[in-house]
Amino acid sequence: MTQSPRPIRIGMVGHGFMGKAHSHAFHDLPLFFPPDDLGAYPVLQVICGRNEPAVRAAAARYGWAHVEIDWRRLVERDDVDLVDIVASNDVHAPVAIAAAAAGKAILCEKPLARTLAEAREMLGAAQAAGVPHMVGFNSRRYPAVQLARRLIDEGAVGRVYHWRAQFFNERFLDPELPLAWRMQAETAGSGALGDLGSHAIDLARFLVGDIAEVAGATEVFVPERPLPGRPGERAPVTGDDAAIWLCRFANGALGTFEASKLAAGHKTDLSFEVNGSAGALRWHFQELNSLELYSRGDPPHARGWRRILATEPEHPFAAAYWPAGHPLGYEHSFINQAADLCRALAQGQPPSPDFVDGAACQAVMDAVLRAAKSRRWESVEAV
Amino acid sequence: MTQSPRPIRIGMVGHGFMGKAHSHAFHDLPLFFPPDDLGAYPVLQVICGRNEPAVRAAAARYGWAHVEIDWRRLVERDDVDLVDIVASNDVHAPVAIAAAAAGKAILCEKPLARTLAEAREMLGAAQAAGVPHMVGFNSRRYPAVQLARRLIDEGAVGRVYHWRAQFFNERFLDPELPLAWRMQAETAGSGALGDLGSHAIDLARFLVGDIAEVAGATEVFVPERPLPGRPGERAPVTGDDAAIWLCRFANGALGTFEASKLAAGHKTDLSFEVNGSAGALRWHFQELNSLELYSRGDPPHARGWRRILATEPEHPFAAAYWPAGHPLGYEHSFINQAADLCRALAQGQPPSPDFVDGAACQAVMDAVLRAAKSRRWESVEAV
Amino acid sequence: MTQSPRPIRIGMVGHGFMGKAHSHAFHDLPLFFPPDDLGAYPVLQVICGRNEPAVRAAAARYGWAHVEIDWRRLVERDDVDLVDIVASNDVHAPVAIAAAAAGKAILCEKPLARTLAEAREMLGAAQAAGVPHMVGFNSRRYPAVQLARRLIDEGAVGRVYHWRAQFFNERFLDPELPLAWRMQAETAGSGALGDLGSHAIDLARFLVGDIAEVAGATEVFVPERPLPGRPGERAPVTGDDAAIWLCRFANGALGTFEASKLAAGHKTDLSFEVNGSAGALRWHFQELNSLELYSRGDPPHARGWRRILATEPEHPFAAAYWPAGHPLGYEHSFINQAADLCRALAQGQPPSPDFVDGAACQAVMDAVLRAAKSRRWESVEAV
Amino acid sequence: MTQSPRPIRIGMVGHGFMGKAHSHAFHDLPLFFPPDDLGAYPVLQVICGRNEPAVRAAAARYGWAHVEIDWRRLVERDDVDLVDIVASNDVHAPVAIAAAAAGKAILCEKPLARTLAEAREMLGAAQAAGVPHMVGFNSRRYPAVQLARRLIDEGAVGRVYHWRAQFFNERFLDPELPLAWRMQAETAGSGALGDLGSHAIDLARFLVGDIAEVAGATEVFVPERPLPGRPGERAPVTGDDAAIWLCRFANGALGTFEASKLAAGHKTDLSFEVNGSAGALRWHFQELNSLELYSRGDPPHARGWRRILATEPEHPFAAAYWPAGHPLGYEHSFINQAADLCRALAQGQPPSPDFVDGAACQAVMDAVLRAAKSRRWESVEAV
Repeated sequence: MTQSPRPIRIGMVGHGFMGKAHSHAFHDLPLFFPPDDLGAYPVLQVICGRNEPAVRAAAARYGWAHVEIDWRRLVERDDVDLVDIVASNDVHAPVAIAAAAAGKAILCEKPLARTLAEAREMLGAAQAAGVPHMVGFNSRRYPAVQLARRLIDEGAVGRVYHWRAQFFNERFLDPELPLAWRMQAETAGSGALGDLGSHAIDLARFLVGDIAEVAGATEVFVPERPLPGRPGERAPVTGDDAAIWLCRFANGALGTFEASKLAAGHKTDLSFEVNGSAGALRWHFQELNSLELYSRGDPPHARGWRRILATEPEHPFAAAYWPAGHPLGYEHSFINQAADLCRALAQGQPPSPDFVDGAACQAVMDAVLRAAKSRRWESVEAV
Repeated sequence: MTQSPRPIRIGMVGHGFMGKAHSHAFHDLPLFFPPDDLGAYPVLQVICGRNEPAVRAAAARYGWAHVEIDWRRLVERDDVDLVDIVASNDVHAPVAIAAAAAGKAILCEKPLARTLAEAREMLGAAQAAGVPHMVGFNSRRYPAVQLARRLIDEGAVGRVYHWRAQFFNERFLDPELPLAWRMQAETAGSGALGDLGSHAIDLARFLVGDIAEVAGATEVFVPERPLPGRPGERAPVTGDDAAIWLCRFANGALGTFEASKLAAGHKTDLSFEVNGSAGALRWHFQELNSLELYSRGDPPHARGWRRILATEPEHPFAAAYWPAGHPLGYEHSFINQAADLCRALAQGQPPSPDFVDGAACQAVMDAVLRAAKSRRWESVEAV
Repeated sequence: MTQSPRPIRIGMVGHGFMGKAHSHAFHDLPLFFPPDDLGAYPVLQVICGRNEPAVRAAAARYGWAHVEIDWRRLVERDDVDLVDIVASNDVHAPVAIAAAAAGKAILCEKPLARTLAEAREMLGAAQAAGVPHMVGFNSRRYPAVQLARRLIDEGAVGRVYHWRAQFFNERFLDPELPLAWRMQAETAGSGALGDLGSHAIDLARFLVGDIAEVAGATEVFVPERPLPGRPGERAPVTGDDAAIWLCRFANGALGTFEASKLAAGHKTDLSFEVNGSAGALRWHFQELNSLELYSRGDPPHARGWRRILATEPEHPFAAAYWPAGHPLGYEHSFINQAADLCRALAQGQPPSPDFVDGAACQAVMDAVLRAAKSRRWESVEAV
Repeated sequence: MTQSPRPIRIGMVGHGFMGKAHSHAFHDLPLFFPPDDLGAYPVLQVICGRNEPAVRAAAARYGWAHVEIDWRRLVERDDVDLVDIVASNDVHAPVAIAAAAAGKAILCEKPLARTLAEAREMLGAAQAAGVPHMVGFNSRRYPAVQLARRLIDEGAVGRVYHWRAQFFNERFLDPELPLAWRMQAETAGSGALGDLGSHAIDLARFLVGDIAEVAGATEVFVPERPLPGRPGERAPVTGDDAAIWLCRFANGALGTFEASKLAAGHKTDLSFEVNGSAGALRWHFQELNSLELYSRGDPPHARGWRRILATEPEHPFAAAYWPAGHPLGYEHSFINQAADLCRALAQGQPPSPDFVDGAACQAVMDAVLRAAKSRRWESVEAV
């Protein structure tokens, strides 16, 4: 006899952009992934934020049952099974550590922390408490990205020689855009590096493997910005506007990376390409439903980049949605992430990517910041 | 003093592919379009289907409160404000006519009917009853398609010389694919022409204007298919596998159209292009978030096709979703459609496109079928 | 013992756009295709034009040894082996017929003639005289187009269901562009249909086969244009600005065609796509070095349009030029045409495409013009 | 009174791939750029190579009047005005220095030399002798690249923040490809860095400006290769298979570069992108006729990447060839280079890019090699 699916009561800390993305994913999950199939389903139990009117409005809009103003209370609630951290980066460590201590499962947005030290502390706390932990690298969960992983496993790339990844937008081009937490090293740990670059690093680790060493540079192109709510005042920007870096992977491949918020012409533009002895793969977020494959296994007169539309029933996650050829969007990566998380929790399996992955990504970012300062190649520390 | 938003209790007839798309749209609507802004919100009141276990499963999955097995009972329920018809085409007319008689607002999937005569009856019934009526040409409601309309209004195309539109997939390539209602003229009215071509015709009417006359051909490439549930038996396919036609618009422009379900390489591939005296526009469903514009207003040395990513706050519908550059998918067209429908009902305005548009599209399809048979150019009848 | 390569002394009638393209091709041929390999090489013997200073300038620029003012004299010269006709369409028939009577080999630009009757006369004359004859459908001779033919032969497309081809430019958008011979039915036979559409028809015949019947429309969007050299005067445009037509091939496939000189956004934009039971191919002149292939033979999870860069040594003509990956341009189609012509003449083989192909293309254009007038489907006459 | 155009008698050292490209360019130049317009025209006077049968064959094929076996004799000939160096990199310096001493104008293929020291010597010799000198960075001379320079001058990019350039091919993927001079540091100076990367560096300097410092890595993925002509023997590869590097420009912009001959999926794939405060530009060699422009000057609702087909009469070099929309290919960059060189010589102006540019590019490569070894950022030396 099959068991009833298990409710997973979620307490979410934060209610901004990521709060909307996560709320929507939990809201939509059962329509596309039936609870009976997953063995679990999310319950939008408590949402938390410091600004009470704002958090109440978010609760009403997204369908959260309860509201908390203090995350410490949320973490201690008996009716919460999983703490979902979608607040600014400086809040990740304290909430996660408290949640672990309270025995809650944890989903934490990327980047896991502001520093490698914080990330290690979070990982240690989760491991010590024995709670399930997951980091929100949603980019892994586009069907086409999962397909890339499968094709690599099938040998489509062979020995990897080259990797490149970029994550660009142009949001900071306007010098009058006011200062925000994502621009400040104190709250965010870094700037474009952590906010955008962390996705690129995680995809590199997911698809190629560990990064051994890096060289790089960071830059603040707009050194001062208006202080919000204080007309006429400006303050220095302490997080990087852009970071560029090279790496050597543990397997000997070379990698190049760019992350920038002043890249005119690019709007949320994440992309990667990997080239190896047997072929190559590339993917662009702006055409997220397709993956391009170049295979040296094709006959020489008919060899070329092949654009695979990853919307067939054969493709990861695709069967949950629409008939072949109907494009998915950004938000589906969060639904897929929620599906995998619920399934893992139902089956008592560790979710992936977890805080080890989160900390490993942080170790690369840490090395990039060190390299930018030392002006040398720097080794990536083990987690 | 602002009024509370008005609940719109929906009774949906059908629960297949379109039933899922509509259910999801009603489910998601309030997250993206707050009821206070729209003045209304949908209530998933009753879902109807002949197969009771299947309709009960759909009700549970999508969150419908009640179930009916007979659409006649659904239409008569007091707790239904709007009848949403997502069943096979042969059911559109009887349900719509009964719903109108019962004073219900109506949303009917495309194509509106099997024949022009049916469409006229439906339109007549809705007009006679004075109920709001809408036809589900969801393709109009991608932000990039709405942007096309706006740019045309701004003069970006000028006098139109050429239009072309295609809607291809490759679903019928396999000759062993069993017969289904979409392949039979008795249930569907036509084949690829009505199922796919109707979208292309509606976009032509939306962006260029009325179609005056057509010449064309239809073809059944796989004349017999297996009968589902009757091993070894085959029956003739009566709906077209493919239709191609030319048109002259009332404004003198020339148009070409193709609709096919045996177009290898294409999966749900709707596209259009319009060329005029001032410039041109083109759009592909597979890159649904962008619109391409060619403007003769650009300086000669810097003139070219410009790919506009229609995800900026300036773009239709886009502000409801995510920050600039985050792709939307197929299903968002239905959410946008539901938003416009709710807003229209709240404001007492007629929704658009309505049964007049549905019948006008049917009139073009009718002319295409006549022309395929007569082997002559045929005039499109007035609605 | 190998024979010395044979000189082919050319007499070229005309010296405009096509005269430049042909002159350049003859000039460049030996650098890329050594005479010893071809068994022949062209000699730029005589160039002919009515405007003596202009033809003398062209002779000097392109390296022609002699000049004639009257094509009748050119045709009769003993030192001419092959007459190359690159003048306006009204001159094709008289020159070709005289050349055949004089026993010369003939290369004639496309479209072969103004009418089917003229084309038949030319073909008859060439056949009666037993001279080699070729029509200048240079578009066949891009490496990627030849590769398409090879892939079709290998079964990449299977049974053909659909063909579409377009040839667009925007040269006539400006209503003040003066009248020219290409706009006048008297000199050109038709307008965009013959000038552009003939390429599309020839590719259809080359890749799919004979066309059985057509329906279509032609249009003159700018009915009057300034008369060159007569300020303030205008005259009617008698050749079509645009033509659109449908066809049925003899093998049952459906085809759509468009040719227009008022297609904003398009500059010399020839493209085709063919879809069949096994796959599909498409090609765009603007990316002339690549051919796209969609193969249903690929595994379902890795199927997609593949862009083949036809610059490998395995690809037709490519080895004559540069290492893999170096793009060729427009003019190389003429060099390749000249190479095949010289090789055929050296080997005593009939060149291809020949006047039969030219007349067959003319028969399709004839049927399109009849269909545009009769407003019915019209059969294509046998040559 | 206009002067007759001046003959420029060329002595070319080398007759391989680049010898073919240069020969063809000189051969074609007068057809597209009339000598009267340029004021000069090339004469294919002497070709030189060590392998007498091979060089005689090349002379016959490409139309060179005389042959030399020893470049020292070529340099001393009275009937040579310009020495064109297209041989392996180790020959560049001795030939150029001797040519300068003999008072000849010099065109030298890129990279100018094997080392910065060699490049400085060559520059010094040319300057001391007062002879015109040019380095063959042909990539600057695609119409679309020249258009990029023009648009930057017009302010289309504004303050530059980012530059990236890549030059990839996949020629060395096969580990059995025999050793050749381009793989050996002794003859080539470096590997992919010099052969491919030098183009990317020159474009960076042309479009953004001087490079101040670099960090990078080089790699030999296939450490040993078969020795040609000595079956069973292998020898170490001493030139890099791939190089990746970052830079800071003197103006503060960040840059990233990649050059590799083991980049599966890429065949002669040079590309760049520049992003600034006002917009962005990008170009790919594989679509060499178009330039993409993103302009923040466009209205927000109609902003996007614009693909400009640089084949209009308004575009650099384009008017010399074909009507708008007819693609040029690889070889046209050499024709354009020859045109500019002849014009400069006719007018007594210094050609551009010259040995200063060649040496400046070499200084960047020198810094990359130093940085790869020191594992630090390294300053680029002044020329």
